[in-house]
Amino acid sequence: MSMTIKEICSKVTPPDEAVLEEARKRTASLLMPERALGELHAVSEKLCALSGTLTPDVKRKAFLVFAGDHGVVAEGVSAYPQEVTAQMIKAFISGKAAINVLAGMIGAEVFVVDAGVATDIDAQIKKDKRFFDRKTARGTRNFAEGPAMARNEAEKALIAGFELASDVFGEGVAMLGLGDMGIGNTTAASAIGAAVTGRPLEEMTGKGTGIAEETLRHKREVIKKAIEVNRPDRKDALDVLSKVGGFEIAGIAGAALAGAVHKRVVVIDGLISTAGALVAHGLCPAVSAYLFAGHESEEPGHKHMLSHLGLRPLLRLGMRLGEGTGAALAMHLIVSASRIIQDMGTFEDMGVSGAL
Amino acid sequence: MSMTIKEICSKVTPPDEAVLEEARKRTASLLMPERALGELHAVSEKLCALSGTLTPDVKRKAFLVFAGDHGVVAEGVSAYPQEVTAQMIKAFISGKAAINVLAGMIGAEVFVVDAGVATDIDAQIKKDKRFFDRKTARGTRNFAEGPAMARNEAEKALIAGFELASDVFGEGVAMLGLGDMGIGNTTAASAIGAAVTGRPLEEMTGKGTGIAEETLRHKREVIKKAIEVNRPDRKDALDVLSKVGGFEIAGIAGAALAGAVHKRVVVIDGLISTAGALVAHGLCPAVSAYLFAGHESEEPGHKHMLSHLGLRPLLRLGMRLGEGTGAALAMHLIVSASRIIQDMGTFEDMGVSGAL
Repeated sequence: MSMTIKEICSKVTPPDEAVLEEARKRTASLLMPERALGELHAVSEKLCALSGTLTPDVKRKAFLVFAGDHGVVAEGVSAYPQEVTAQMIKAFISGKAAINVLAGMIGAEVFVVDAGVATDIDAQIKKDKRFFDRKTARGTRNFAEGPAMARNEAEKALIAGFELASDVFGEGVAMLGLGDMGIGNTTAASAIGAAVTGRPLEEMTGKGTGIAEETLRHKREVIKKAIEVNRPDRKDALDVLSKVGGFEIAGIAGAALAGAVHKRVVVIDGLISTAGALVAHGLCPAVSAYLFAGHESEEPGHKHMLSHLGLRPLLRLGMRLGEGTGAALAMHLIVSASRIIQDMGTFEDMGVSGAL
Repeated sequence: MSMTIKEICSKVTPPDEAVLEEARKRTASLLMPERALGELHAVSEKLCALSGTLTPDVKRKAFLVFAGDHGVVAEGVSAYPQEVTAQMIKAFISGKAAINVLAGMIGAEVFVVDAGVATDIDAQIKKDKRFFDRKTARGTRNFAEGPAMARNEAEKALIAGFELASDVFGEGVAMLGLGDMGIGNTTAASAIGAAVTGRPLEEMTGKGTGIAEETLRHKREVIKKAIEVNRPDRKDALDVLSKVGGFEIAGIAGAALAGAVHKRVVVIDGLISTAGALVAHGLCPAVSAYLFAGHESEEPGHKHMLSHLGLRPLLRLGMRLGEGTGAALAMHLIVSASRIIQDMGTFEDMGVSGAL
């Protein structure tokens, strides 16, 4: 029996304030000038608070790369044909995509989820234990003309992501990265970002995989039309998701909620992953305490979306790939932060003189 | 027989432009939208160019942490007593300092160099194979009153760093991080930064390990006086180094030159490490092609010094510790960049459709 979204949200509790306070004291005792490792200390302390211990575990790592197709590609908003979504699933399973290389660097497993790809997936891939078939529908409808999906489809796709991520945590994964693949999905993510933050489309829409200036203007027009036609209610995250979202974004939102329920670390990636986190946050604002922002992407809307979530990105490398790649690079910093607070000596232990 | 600085510089040649061009072509073929991993591609390609191959090696990693004391502490410019320099050497050897934890994350060895510590080093530590005694003098003189060291002392300390780093590369280390320890050394590094870039002291001087606002004003006055008294010649890097520098900064400058001579990767860290790189660059501008900037520190002058070197920092985490810590975190990104260009599939290999 699946939980409802309401039941899921009722299980999310805030992190442990007393442990956060203890973690800050521990940081202050470490053998270095006060908070000299900057942002790394905030990461250490957040890890302690969310897991309720001064010895947070981030050892076993995995990625869920959610894939979905988008009816809005009919409007000519992407530089790539829709068939690439399914082709990239093959590449993820073969281990030759960017996320495989970067996850491999930190010993993280990569799982791929068909959340709503438009085409059939090869039988060979469907048998692979790193592939999960959670197809809610064969792509969304063109949201420039009406809702991307029905409200119950959005809920179904979100719950599927929640349950899958819960299983992954149940297997012992301590830190989960959330990646995406889906031709057209920066259009959906920008629409969610604009709807939720209320910021102008000029600030929220970028060139995605690399469209021309003219196509960018058209993409903004398409999103403007989608918002006028569908009138998503920013106070109702499921309404926003169903009207201008995507199935992979729904899965990511569910997986983000699973981290908060299970009190595990979730690392979000770029624009699409963050759109999923915005949906999760709209349903349950406490989710931010369990999320880390891997990076700030080249997409102009991303920083505003992260700021809405109250998250500071760990990296700013001008990346715009998705798949979870920014989250994978950032996991090294998160593990480093966990080791700093656990393994360093203190002024007292080491007999080093303090400040004058 | 030691080489002279002039002989060292004559051995530095620019990186391979043809390999750089090939590396850019390889990046363009990889299974992702054009340059979608942002800065990571520039790192991959620089690695290829400097090592003259499309399969750059950054496997074996080490840190040289150069330590030195500063006569200018007599002016009351630091928050910590001078004895901390020697105490921290003990901590580095015990493995409990921040650099040990962060170097451990990437499997890098940490070596500590007494380049000019004011006090004696414990006999126990002097026997440790991770410790190198390259003491040129027992700390610098107070440069608010006259030159920090004689010109031949600066040269001796620099050559010692060059030879030590050359030995480390000779042992098979492919990527070397340059760290520092020295109470008072942000005063020396800021003075070098101001002298070399010609920028105003307000932009170039910060709070170091965490001095009060009033001490910061005093620190600026001390540097102003030092520059007036010594009149360092910005066209003569050895003059700048000897008048307002430090022995650890000299060692770092020499080690940076060793990377360029041996065509290996050198990762610089914060303000002090970068001051050493500025000296190396003043002697031999081609050195920048072999340097990577680990991070941009919280010290306000650091970004101007990196910009003078033509380097873009990989991380911006508000760190201000030194020891090589920012370089250690960044090495993960550099290794990742080397794997991206070597291990990813291409559009062609993977049968994925290109842009429309």
